[in-house]
Amino acid sequence: MTDTVISSATREVVIGFGRPFVMIGERINPTGRKLLAEEMKEGDFSRVEADALAQVTAGAHMLDVNAGVPLADEPALLASAVKLVQSVTDVPLSIDSSIIEALEAGVDAYVGKPLINSVTGEPEVMERVLPLVARTGAAVVAISNDETGISEDPDVRFDVAKRIVRAAADYGIPTADVVVDPLVMPIGAMATAGRQVFHLVRRLRDELGVNTTCGASNVSFGLPNRHIITGTFLAMAIGAGMTSAIMNPLHADVKAAVMAGDVLAGNDENCAAWISEHRDRSAVGADSAAGAGSGDRPRRRGGRRARTG
Amino acid sequence: MTDTVISSATREVVIGFGRPFVMIGERINPTGRKLLAEEMKEGDFSRVEADALAQVTAGAHMLDVNAGVPLADEPALLASAVKLVQSVTDVPLSIDSSIIEALEAGVDAYVGKPLINSVTGEPEVMERVLPLVARTGAAVVAISNDETGISEDPDVRFDVAKRIVRAAADYGIPTADVVVDPLVMPIGAMATAGRQVFHLVRRLRDELGVNTTCGASNVSFGLPNRHIITGTFLAMAIGAGMTSAIMNPLHADVKAAVMAGDVLAGNDENCAAWISEHRDRSAVGADSAAGAGSGDRPRRRGGRRARTG
Repeated sequence: MTDTVISSATREVVIGFGRPFVMIGERINPTGRKLLAEEMKEGDFSRVEADALAQVTAGAHMLDVNAGVPLADEPALLASAVKLVQSVTDVPLSIDSSIIEALEAGVDAYVGKPLINSVTGEPEVMERVLPLVARTGAAVVAISNDETGISEDPDVRFDVAKRIVRAAADYGIPTADVVVDPLVMPIGAMATAGRQVFHLVRRLRDELGVNTTCGASNVSFGLPNRHIITGTFLAMAIGAGMTSAIMNPLHADVKAAVMAGDVLAGNDENCAAWISEHRDRSAVGADSAAGAGSGDRPRRRGGRRARTG
Repeated sequence: MTDTVISSATREVVIGFGRPFVMIGERINPTGRKLLAEEMKEGDFSRVEADALAQVTAGAHMLDVNAGVPLADEPALLASAVKLVQSVTDVPLSIDSSIIEALEAGVDAYVGKPLINSVTGEPEVMERVLPLVARTGAAVVAISNDETGISEDPDVRFDVAKRIVRAAADYGIPTADVVVDPLVMPIGAMATAGRQVFHLVRRLRDELGVNTTCGASNVSFGLPNRHIITGTFLAMAIGAGMTSAIMNPLHADVKAAVMAGDVLAGNDENCAAWISEHRDRSAVGADSAAGAGSGDRPRRRGGRRARTG
């Protein structure tokens, strides 16, 4: 079993096979959020605080923190955001930037063992990010693209992931501290996007023994009723062996699908989390509308009764 | 590719790999439906008619018809139900009974090529059902239990399925006309129930090349918010390669998960069915509540931008 342990000062989260899927809240990210970007640039972190609290209340086990505001001092912003979030919640964080100085500043400001998000298979990126991971004893998200871009062949992406895991090992970073992102493309633009990820996640688990994560919301880009697509994707990914995702736990459909995926993959012992989540709701009412056909008795179909003919 | 063709007088449905998942409506079944059982026994098929129409309107590609009313003349009831359903809808039918005479009467009354539901791996059951399947050129559901019962080991269930496929071949029934039911147990009673089915479906597809079906509602028996569990199970089963299920298309959550599963498995070309299903709803409104973080722009995460550090 591969356990990736991420921690804050007072709390530990373990990403691992057979364990409940780890939901990493995606909301603290100014990309595409103009208002948040403007506020962060001006040093107003009130929305960051509110997003942190709301996501944890909704069930996020970890939070991703990104401060990628164009033309701003991203290292300073990311350090401030990390400190602020750690002051209001004790869930472990994923520190997210494409800029090495921002990752360094964020990790310096962090108390505990963070998830550094991310490294790619590009040699110059690995040379910058992996020493930071090794030096700070962090875990890292490894995105399976390299200097040639994102291959449409999942087996090429597997090879990129393998190369990153090996390079990490050369820096003394254990495989358990590399969480591979197979890269999720919009299914509306690429019909094979789902199948590719499921295939790749299975190989990453069976052959490399690594935990996996992804930016889940991408998959449903441009489609109607997209949260059902995102949630269903995550459940299918759990079925293929994915162990965490950067996602929005505030979307009830997405969260419910992840929790149901955990039940069906056998990751929710005695269905305890599922039952607890629904304890206060009327489970009876939900069944009554369409009658007893799929109601309260298990069904017996033809072949399971004694035949008299 | 294994295509199982089922037909009525005027319509054909194909169950097959890479094709849209075939939803077989489960509602016409008096098991656990006291009122329906009483009405059918008295020759009142009005509820059967209403259930047939409602399920087809909701998107069922086929309908299962079961007339298992205790102490009634099941062969006569099943023949009447089959005729009635074929008079009000043109979708192909699954003719469902544990009594060979009822199956015979149902198939005799049927116009087209039905799915006979079901045969098991019990020798005396195979000896009765398979000749009927062969003589009428029907397809058949093969349930993977035998005279020793239902094994908890999915690999034993695989062997039972293989034995049925071979026995069918001895009667001249092609593999494409055997649709295997891996047997779905309630996940609340058996934590491995989901994993077992996914494992078995993958083996049945990869090694036997057969299509698969199941009674899906069983999986969520006894759990709160069970339609989410059932729908999520079906999507994960689609991910593992399942190609049809006996289910309730009237439950919106179940149907949506199946359709999303088809999108993500690449079975819904250009997402056409998904987009058509949601054309009349506001896709924009669904996204606005939680802001732009998972909104209308695809997200770019750290590693995919040029690094400046």
